[in-house]
Amino acid sequence: MKAKNSKKTITDSTVDQDVLTYTVGEDTVLDMALIKWDCMGTAAHVTMLSEMKGLRKPIVTKAEAAKVRKELANVVAKAQKGDFVIREDDQDVHMAVERALTEKLGDLGKKIHTGRSRNDQVAVDVRLHMKSEILSLEKEICALVAALCKFGKKEGAIPLVGRTHLQPAMPSTVEMWATGHAEMILDQLENFEAAYRLADLNPLGSAAGYGVPLPLNRARTTALLGFARTIHNCFGASMARGECEAALLSALAQVMCVLSRLAQDMIIFSMPEFAYFRLPREYCTGSSIMPQKYNPDVLELVRGKTAQVVGWQTAALTLLHGMPGGYNRDLQDAKLLYMKGLETTRTTLRIMTKIVEGMKTDPDACRAAFTPGVFATDVALRKVAAGVPWRDAYHDVRDHLELLESEDCDAAVKAKTHEGTCLGVDGALYSARISAAKALASKRLAALEACCKKLLR
Amino acid sequence: MKAKNSKKTITDSTVDQDVLTYTVGEDTVLDMALIKWDCMGTAAHVTMLSEMKGLRKPIVTKAEAAKVRKELANVVAKAQKGDFVIREDDQDVHMAVERALTEKLGDLGKKIHTGRSRNDQVAVDVRLHMKSEILSLEKEICALVAALCKFGKKEGAIPLVGRTHLQPAMPSTVEMWATGHAEMILDQLENFEAAYRLADLNPLGSAAGYGVPLPLNRARTTALLGFARTIHNCFGASMARGECEAALLSALAQVMCVLSRLAQDMIIFSMPEFAYFRLPREYCTGSSIMPQKYNPDVLELVRGKTAQVVGWQTAALTLLHGMPGGYNRDLQDAKLLYMKGLETTRTTLRIMTKIVEGMKTDPDACRAAFTPGVFATDVALRKVAAGVPWRDAYHDVRDHLELLESEDCDAAVKAKTHEGTCLGVDGALYSARISAAKALASKRLAALEACCKKLLR
Amino acid sequence: MKAKNSKKTITDSTVDQDVLTYTVGEDTVLDMALIKWDCMGTAAHVTMLSEMKGLRKPIVTKAEAAKVRKELANVVAKAQKGDFVIREDDQDVHMAVERALTEKLGDLGKKIHTGRSRNDQVAVDVRLHMKSEILSLEKEICALVAALCKFGKKEGAIPLVGRTHLQPAMPSTVEMWATGHAEMILDQLENFEAAYRLADLNPLGSAAGYGVPLPLNRARTTALLGFARTIHNCFGASMARGECEAALLSALAQVMCVLSRLAQDMIIFSMPEFAYFRLPREYCTGSSIMPQKYNPDVLELVRGKTAQVVGWQTAALTLLHGMPGGYNRDLQDAKLLYMKGLETTRTTLRIMTKIVEGMKTDPDACRAAFTPGVFATDVALRKVAAGVPWRDAYHDVRDHLELLESEDCDAAVKAKTHEGTCLGVDGALYSARISAAKALASKRLAALEACCKKLLR
Amino acid sequence: MKAKNSKKTITDSTVDQDVLTYTVGEDTVLDMALIKWDCMGTAAHVTMLSEMKGLRKPIVTKAEAAKVRKELANVVAKAQKGDFVIREDDQDVHMAVERALTEKLGDLGKKIHTGRSRNDQVAVDVRLHMKSEILSLEKEICALVAALCKFGKKEGAIPLVGRTHLQPAMPSTVEMWATGHAEMILDQLENFEAAYRLADLNPLGSAAGYGVPLPLNRARTTALLGFARTIHNCFGASMARGECEAALLSALAQVMCVLSRLAQDMIIFSMPEFAYFRLPREYCTGSSIMPQKYNPDVLELVRGKTAQVVGWQTAALTLLHGMPGGYNRDLQDAKLLYMKGLETTRTTLRIMTKIVEGMKTDPDACRAAFTPGVFATDVALRKVAAGVPWRDAYHDVRDHLELLESEDCDAAVKAKTHEGTCLGVDGALYSARISAAKALASKRLAALEACCKKLLR
Repeated sequence: MKAKNSKKTITDSTVDQDVLTYTVGEDTVLDMALIKWDCMGTAAHVTMLSEMKGLRKPIVTKAEAAKVRKELANVVAKAQKGDFVIREDDQDVHMAVERALTEKLGDLGKKIHTGRSRNDQVAVDVRLHMKSEILSLEKEICALVAALCKFGKKEGAIPLVGRTHLQPAMPSTVEMWATGHAEMILDQLENFEAAYRLADLNPLGSAAGYGVPLPLNRARTTALLGFARTIHNCFGASMARGECEAALLSALAQVMCVLSRLAQDMIIFSMPEFAYFRLPREYCTGSSIMPQKYNPDVLELVRGKTAQVVGWQTAALTLLHGMPGGYNRDLQDAKLLYMKGLETTRTTLRIMTKIVEGMKTDPDACRAAFTPGVFATDVALRKVAAGVPWRDAYHDVRDHLELLESEDCDAAVKAKTHEGTCLGVDGALYSARISAAKALASKRLAALEACCKKLLR
Repeated sequence: MKAKNSKKTITDSTVDQDVLTYTVGEDTVLDMALIKWDCMGTAAHVTMLSEMKGLRKPIVTKAEAAKVRKELANVVAKAQKGDFVIREDDQDVHMAVERALTEKLGDLGKKIHTGRSRNDQVAVDVRLHMKSEILSLEKEICALVAALCKFGKKEGAIPLVGRTHLQPAMPSTVEMWATGHAEMILDQLENFEAAYRLADLNPLGSAAGYGVPLPLNRARTTALLGFARTIHNCFGASMARGECEAALLSALAQVMCVLSRLAQDMIIFSMPEFAYFRLPREYCTGSSIMPQKYNPDVLELVRGKTAQVVGWQTAALTLLHGMPGGYNRDLQDAKLLYMKGLETTRTTLRIMTKIVEGMKTDPDACRAAFTPGVFATDVALRKVAAGVPWRDAYHDVRDHLELLESEDCDAAVKAKTHEGTCLGVDGALYSARISAAKALASKRLAALEACCKKLLR
Repeated sequence: MKAKNSKKTITDSTVDQDVLTYTVGEDTVLDMALIKWDCMGTAAHVTMLSEMKGLRKPIVTKAEAAKVRKELANVVAKAQKGDFVIREDDQDVHMAVERALTEKLGDLGKKIHTGRSRNDQVAVDVRLHMKSEILSLEKEICALVAALCKFGKKEGAIPLVGRTHLQPAMPSTVEMWATGHAEMILDQLENFEAAYRLADLNPLGSAAGYGVPLPLNRARTTALLGFARTIHNCFGASMARGECEAALLSALAQVMCVLSRLAQDMIIFSMPEFAYFRLPREYCTGSSIMPQKYNPDVLELVRGKTAQVVGWQTAALTLLHGMPGGYNRDLQDAKLLYMKGLETTRTTLRIMTKIVEGMKTDPDACRAAFTPGVFATDVALRKVAAGVPWRDAYHDVRDHLELLESEDCDAAVKAKTHEGTCLGVDGALYSARISAAKALASKRLAALEACCKKLLR
Repeated sequence: MKAKNSKKTITDSTVDQDVLTYTVGEDTVLDMALIKWDCMGTAAHVTMLSEMKGLRKPIVTKAEAAKVRKELANVVAKAQKGDFVIREDDQDVHMAVERALTEKLGDLGKKIHTGRSRNDQVAVDVRLHMKSEILSLEKEICALVAALCKFGKKEGAIPLVGRTHLQPAMPSTVEMWATGHAEMILDQLENFEAAYRLADLNPLGSAAGYGVPLPLNRARTTALLGFARTIHNCFGASMARGECEAALLSALAQVMCVLSRLAQDMIIFSMPEFAYFRLPREYCTGSSIMPQKYNPDVLELVRGKTAQVVGWQTAALTLLHGMPGGYNRDLQDAKLLYMKGLETTRTTLRIMTKIVEGMKTDPDACRAAFTPGVFATDVALRKVAAGVPWRDAYHDVRDHLELLESEDCDAAVKAKTHEGTCLGVDGALYSARISAAKALASKRLAALEACCKKLLR
């Protein structure tokens, strides 16, 4: 499984094969996701170089820059068709793209790295990739939230036993349950906004973290790449590696925790003892030994994947803990962590959406679950509304629990009308928030793609 | 250490003393920080109750509400003088305040809990507390950033060996080092903004998570308490417990990691082998056995406390993992986690500010550290700027490293002028960002205090 | 809350009060648990000093050593009566004890620190404390395991629906459920054995991590203190700080996870929809708004405390991550982490034992829960035992699920007799393991106490 | 990247392709490591089935069992040659092996699953795999420890500045540094012993966690497979999944933390400012922009990989947190976590061994680093040994630090001779421990392989 020969690296020194494996890691696979963004970053850099003033002779001419951009566009086109690979001796996407350019453009391909280091290059790639991924993920969040709201609306005011401590507590509705989870998921967009804003900063031009003695125009690449702002300090830019990854992983871990709670409810309430919900069969799996079973494996795996994302996020923070200033190689591992986290979370969001879309409610089972005690608080408060002091009402009810037998769950639901309770859930409010969030993500995604198209043509 | 007798709880059932200890935990201490916010929340609730329409008879009259608010103001005043305690048989701040009210106001004290549960009550307290704390912390971040910028400015362009992989890499400056860390810390405000926005939501009126059959006006308490928005769904509101704590802890863990990197640099560069920086003696400690020592204990503890905050944050996520919907008692522990995290982070920020303020640079040591290799890239790029192709320049330099001996670190620093590099660091940019951040935090804090004063008078 | 004046520290330099608070942390409280062990460690050290050969003049005479030991015994006696405090200006237990000795013995009190540093002193204290605590915890594990076995035995072969994926799966029994959890908990002793063995190593004589130019007899203190072995390398001894804490926290986090699974089962199966188990009322709490409720708060807190212990354990590992060799101050925080983890786990074990002891089974509810599908696999396998090929048997059963209606859960239980299944659970096996584990813990504890008594008299 | 068609699963129901991807995960790759162990487990099960008494007709005859074992041996042989693949529609190793058997043996291939579930099957595979891996890892630990001891011995008593808080503290030696780290790593074997003992338990015969109504002889498979003991309780056996993985990951995370500390020391002390150690060039990498650089990337990645293993371990604990009893699908993810953790740790151990083997010391640089203060404590203690009271000696030295100028580092080293200090480090002690550890691991590995060979022939 391990190669026996050492290989030549870019710096011409002899490197042990074990070391190459250790240092390259999964980069040749992970970096496939960065090809487009690497080309975009290079296109912006070379454009800026061609416009740079105050030099005796331009590093690259405008015509040369145009040639490079055209070739980069070819690389992206090839990659989209699956015809571009990163070889292990490339080590990473940067070298693979540079090799492709040099094969076509000769020495010109080598010039493009002037005034840049792999440090700021990969930092740009990662940030462009993150921006695109976060925006796509936000749309997937919206889709899941919409599915929950639709599920809630469809079921309307079907009474559901509301629980605290998993014990029956007070009357609720299926809609309240579904939109409650939906609202929690929607609120998670705040964390992704923070991650997005931290990703939306341009590190290009910081080189190895200390800038270069050339009149780089960093604001220009910021504009070309569509970043909100430049990371001003070059040393800071090199340290910012790891921090946007950590912010993103925090957002991912948090939304996964929210999803794991939804999954847990769905697991419990689809047990035959409750049977409130029936999961779509194609999202359940059977047993090799028990033919009667339809297990909610996918939902259990949502719990499991949540633990994994929490683990990756912990790893990202542990990685940063006590790391000296300036670039250090361990920062590279932050890439693997956020990529795994993103992929897992996005898949989970999509699968949860499908399960929610296919889930059915059993209204009879929901109603049958109401036991008298569930009405106790409502009845006491009804007395309060009618003028009885709370404490008296409370004791009245407790001393005559038998009177609760005649309570009706549908009536109980109808009696609760203030904002956010049974009949007070306002679906329009969620629709409006979903629309706004989707529109913002789409607009940002379009702007990013527009920059990309402009640079790579 | 453990009491032998069981005690009566609020629900009049007999509870084992071990259980009381386990369930109450450190609440009687931690809740001291919540007294003011608990009174403020109750004042808003009782005001809303007194205005509620559609009831045969008001639950409390406006005059009664005014009496309650006045008494709540007294409680806060007592607490500020240190004259208010939460007894173990109170269990928590809510009971302690209710006891105080009932002692003064009799039955009126008991009415105020109508239409409310301890679930939404504590959720309000925690969110008001968080808002206030986050804003104070943001000001402390600004103070540390300002101290770093001032330190950087004072030292101006003192050359410093820039490092990657801890190895000497390229010329940098003390200012670039200081403001690089400053910018990283400043950027962390994004995460606190997300945490603040998640905290700035009103859960009041959700009761135990299912609302009540009374015409509560939730928008009213949102306005009275100065929240940006109501958590619409009552079930969602009960689940939001834990999520704002997790978001805050994520922000705390991330900023601590950034601080641990600054601390690590300060530890290393104040070692006698470098001696770039001299830490203020009063922030160092000695040895019981080695008289010559001044150890950077405080900075080492910054690393250690970072690990603790990472641990609390992991705990918060683990806590939420797979938790069923609706309130569950384990959510209570999220309070302890975020409070510890906040206190530790705020203290760390303050201490780091003091150390930075007292830190001195040794310009001679900084300059003496320059070895020829540090100039290699700059010299190669200077040739590029003069028209030599990069690859030729690169080889030229590598083949004649002896020529680098004559390079001068001050000159090297002066040759780097683009945005964010040695002479391109723009202090005004940081000042502007600090001012804006401080102004926003102050404005929000003032608004919060204004609501508080209006309610408690 | 913060004092305004700076204070003098042991090294006579002026230290900022904030710094003192930051560096001392909770030590004045936590260290109360170390008094006895600190005195024991000092007694061993001073005894060794008094016997040291090859010096012109003994550092302390045998008579002086006896005086010191006697005074140390007095300190321990005072501490046990609650009459000994660690003041903030003591900073820690070591200084508090040294102060007490110096007050009584004058200069002799100062001599005892010869050839020792606070580094190896606290390391000894912590290890003696850990040994004692681990052994007590192991006895508490045994008590919980015994309670579960007793519960299982008492309920005998009451049929219980066995579940996988929380779905009804195959017939089981209450005993199988209880002893299954018991066995998992019992197996956790392996991790505590590892932690114990790592704690059972003597660091004394390593001083600040580099030994001293005195002919210390390290094997002698190892024998006096009852350690299994000396940590040979002095530099290693200083780094071992943190590692035994991490090992212990790993064991704690793992056993808490096992307990959280037991708690989760108890929460679910005591829901009214199952009602298999009835929790003792005194371990449940009520609601401020819903009179009908008995919530399993304590069990939910077991889940919550598990998250906390996981967090502390993560913190311990993050703390160690990348720490340079030799003593660093952040290692001090490992003390807080393991002490909190120990206390939380031990309390949890004791509370779980009480709940299990008070838990009741409802045999009717258990039997009523059997649905036909639960018998499917058993029936198919019965056919297999009778000679039908498995695949045919499997299809037969699946095509005639209606025939399962007549199956009887008690009969199903009786048909399963091999090792470890329904009737094959062998209680004697557990009793034997519990006895052996208890005996070993008791023997070790007695040996430790014997060393202590011998030194402190 | 995603297939569009749904596929048939083992239970003949239609499963969504996304779900298949989600549930199968990386199993088709990871399970390659389990082929041998799966065959071994099946061979033991089928042997036991063929010997089972009390049935009307044997489920498989002895001749059939022999045929199955022969075919299993063929599968293993094919796998070793790289000719056996697990297809995605196999889902996992179990189905792939069963498919291979059925292709060759027809119906007999299907009979072998009688009395077994995939739950106990995979649990056996994982435990056999773990045992083998732990033992190999233990040997790698021994190799690294031996390399460190050899390095230490070779350098002998070259003086090295001993540090605390990274500050120069007291005289030490290169040997003391190297063997100090070695001893810490060696002590980590305790945690692997615990993990090994938890892995060395047989779950086979527990089926889906509730046993079967067949007279399985569980002790027989325990003997055939060479396990130390049977997991008695079948329900417990199903829950033990996850726990041995957690124990192993704890051991892995802890040893990685120890290695990260060694790596950190090597990074710092090979900086040109110290230059105590020179890392082998083939384990360093260059820069794309700075030709003068040789960066310790591999050692930095050791820090980074440590963070990853900590993350996986946190994930494993989070996974277990609150999981209900019986098998749940999320337990499957524990496999991925421990496999990744194992692979990363084993590679790290091997790479560290190579780096240590190639590392050189610069004795001049080591000696040049001694500053007078480093001798302070030694000189004071020398006076103590000569009869001066400690406090007087301490002040004498502090008041005349100039006298320390004449101290010699080699002499200082020679003056420290007690156990474990400079000249008191006993290499023979480490050799003995290494030999014993290696012998134990080899003996256990041989026993495991002997069982395997006996079953698969």
